[in-house]
Amino acid sequence: MNYPGGIKHNRHITNNNINYANRGMSLEEELNITNKYYRDIDKAVIYKKPTPIKVVKANFISRKNVKIIEAYFDMPSTTDYNGIYKGKYIDFEAKETISNTSFPLNNIHSHQLLHLKKVKDHGGISFIIVRFKYLNETYLLFEKDLNEFITNNKRKSIPLLYFKEKGYQIKDKYNPRIDYLEVIDNIGGTNDEKGI
Amino acid sequence: MNYPGGIKHNRHITNNNINYANRGMSLEEELNITNKYYRDIDKAVIYKKPTPIKVVKANFISRKNVKIIEAYFDMPSTTDYNGIYKGKYIDFEAKETISNTSFPLNNIHSHQLLHLKKVKDHGGISFIIVRFKYLNETYLLFEKDLNEFITNNKRKSIPLLYFKEKGYQIKDKYNPRIDYLEVIDNIGGTNDEKGI
Repeated sequence: MNYPGGIKHNRHITNNNINYANRGMSLEEELNITNKYYRDIDKAVIYKKPTPIKVVKANFISRKNVKIIEAYFDMPSTTDYNGIYKGKYIDFEAKETISNTSFPLNNIHSHQLLHLKKVKDHGGISFIIVRFKYLNETYLLFEKDLNEFITNNKRKSIPLLYFKEKGYQIKDKYNPRIDYLEVIDNIGGTNDEKGI
Repeated sequence: MNYPGGIKHNRHITNNNINYANRGMSLEEELNITNKYYRDIDKAVIYKKPTPIKVVKANFISRKNVKIIEAYFDMPSTTDYNGIYKGKYIDFEAKETISNTSFPLNNIHSHQLLHLKKVKDHGGISFIIVRFKYLNETYLLFEKDLNEFITNNKRKSIPLLYFKEKGYQIKDKYNPRIDYLEVIDNIGGTNDEKGI
């Protein structure tokens, strides 16, 4: 769990004039901007869930003014992102890796993998978005293919080649930056027809 | 926003042998148990989102050991609960009131009302669950009826009578405690057929 990354999500992005050349932006920040764009144009209603934090001690100055003085990052129960698109439930986890060859599976908790599978079994669209940071390549891999890899391999990481073969590359755009819904659009977006 | 209540959700419910007579349990705690039950029997995958907390200062002992020493409760962007049921996206907010006659609308933020409407417009099932604490009566009110009240009334609170007329009472049960999906089942659960 990228704990320090968990703090980042509280940064307020005040400048909407994003510099396209800004490569320092994290996948999380770019997805937040993308989801805001989707909401602004009323294409989808998808949010990142807040980072779970376990509060141990807090000073109650008033009902609306509480200062937390001891707290810890908690294990997330589910994935980071969910919402609705064209009436369908969407659920995904997003991760960056510094590896140029494979995505280490220990980046995703087993209960998150199980959650993604349950979502699919219940008729939702579930996937992971993985960015190979130094290659600047971002892939969407549906739960079905993720699950197939894990079931059939003993490897603790998914090779980049598998993403190239089974996943869908999401090319950087100006707006939306990480247009992952385009992948859903292109392949139909339903479990039954296209075998997501 | 019930900030002190936000802390409660971090309480760990270790004893699964819930005492039915325990009236001290909050609506949030009962909904958490209900959602866990739904997940355990694989009926639905619905979770409460973590309470948003803005971290200001933290000590990084190690990557996996971070102690937050200054943080504040943040405004939630959306509603507290969402997930998937029978392939449909479900989204709701739950509130308790100590009033015996009406539910004060200032309990729900305007952006949360807008969010519930957007979810409905995108084909999801959205509603509020309101408990009149001292009456021990809990109602589900669909977004359509909530919106209709707000549009047609200048009142700052929704009378109990309106919940009785337009809402659906959820009777306490042993398991699941707050069986709100029964309401969805009984009325069909689709936007088009039953006018949710």
